[in-house]
Amino acid sequence: MKKIEVIQNVLEANETIAKRNQQLLDRHRVFAINIMSAPGAGKTSLILQTLTRLKGRLNMAVIEGDVASTVDAEKVQSEAKAVVQINTRNMPESCSLMAAMIESALKDMPLDNIDLLLIENVGNLICPSEFTLGEHKRMVISSLPEGDDKPIKYPLIFIDADAVIINKMDLLPHVDFDIAAFHRSVEGLNPKAEVFQLSCKTSEGIERWCSWVLEQVKTNAIKR
Amino acid sequence: MKKIEVIQNVLEANETIAKRNQQLLDRHRVFAINIMSAPGAGKTSLILQTLTRLKGRLNMAVIEGDVASTVDAEKVQSEAKAVVQINTRNMPESCSLMAAMIESALKDMPLDNIDLLLIENVGNLICPSEFTLGEHKRMVISSLPEGDDKPIKYPLIFIDADAVIINKMDLLPHVDFDIAAFHRSVEGLNPKAEVFQLSCKTSEGIERWCSWVLEQVKTNAIKR
Repeated sequence: MKKIEVIQNVLEANETIAKRNQQLLDRHRVFAINIMSAPGAGKTSLILQTLTRLKGRLNMAVIEGDVASTVDAEKVQSEAKAVVQINTRNMPESCSLMAAMIESALKDMPLDNIDLLLIENVGNLICPSEFTLGEHKRMVISSLPEGDDKPIKYPLIFIDADAVIINKMDLLPHVDFDIAAFHRSVEGLNPKAEVFQLSCKTSEGIERWCSWVLEQVKTNAIKR
Repeated sequence: MKKIEVIQNVLEANETIAKRNQQLLDRHRVFAINIMSAPGAGKTSLILQTLTRLKGRLNMAVIEGDVASTVDAEKVQSEAKAVVQINTRNMPESCSLMAAMIESALKDMPLDNIDLLLIENVGNLICPSEFTLGEHKRMVISSLPEGDDKPIKYPLIFIDADAVIINKMDLLPHVDFDIAAFHRSVEGLNPKAEVFQLSCKTSEGIERWCSWVLEQVKTNAIKR
């Protein structure tokens, strides 16, 4: 089928650019995390928490991916060394960031002055799982109001994640969410994933998350 | 660009099948609604509420679209005349239902015994806006925990909607959501959209929604 062939070519081309991105990041000692989730699960809030907590210890930059608008870039502007907003609305794939978009964004970043690059993907649990960007770690955020069945319904994005975050823990008394069932589903799909329970609103669990990020950046720096 | 051309062909082919679907539905006097939202916004819960409230007044069927799993079909099984689950995981477009999938599903449905067909699309605010399925009305659900900026970030799906639902109103005391700002954004994009505030958990606002659905089905039946 013609379409599948074209998609195959697009995926291969994306992979090539992603590798080039990672080499560029490695040369400049920048550690990159690809942050994925459904719309409104808390990607921007977690980025803001991370920027605030790790300021002074790491130099950080952010790439914001959205179909439209610059609201997220505006929110993180004051806390990051550099911010680039990508709007995918008129691009061939509007439902995910792709490596070529990151390649363009990196040209506008002072890479030598950055230790950690946080890439906020488009809000979507399907498309972003198909495209690597050149990141060192991939993470997916689930939030309590979405329900505990997301790993079962959108398995691919959980299978490939290095870290899985359960956000909005403060809403636990008000929603139906079986934490143990969620952990079992993630464990079944991806036993190596690091799982974090936290709330960007109350800051519960943020410290453990930030320690993990710091450790990843340091471990990666030693390896190079 | 080759990819864009192929996408264009896919969209045109989809449009042709969608028209055929609508003619088939019209011949059998079935009214169809395409229900779209981000993952976990409450599509299945609203379908369950609608089935329960309108049972005895309408004969209803459901098509469930998911990347993987049959959990949603199992939930609505006992309340509907007919249920078909579509899993898009291995299909060329996994991020949305497409008209050809609906065409197949309709073959398994007792169309002469159905007044209302509720089609639950894949949880996604981007891809489903590109593909019509043959439905008579399109609706999108936003839920309070997702935040009030969704119309600004994912405008296309709101521009095309006949109805916009704000779900999980019961969580208003626990989340930051500016109802007036959300209404303003929807009004700016699509002043004709009917907007409903409700909670599938407490049933607040469900009656107004069900009255609207009943009215749509009746109006459409008279027209034919």
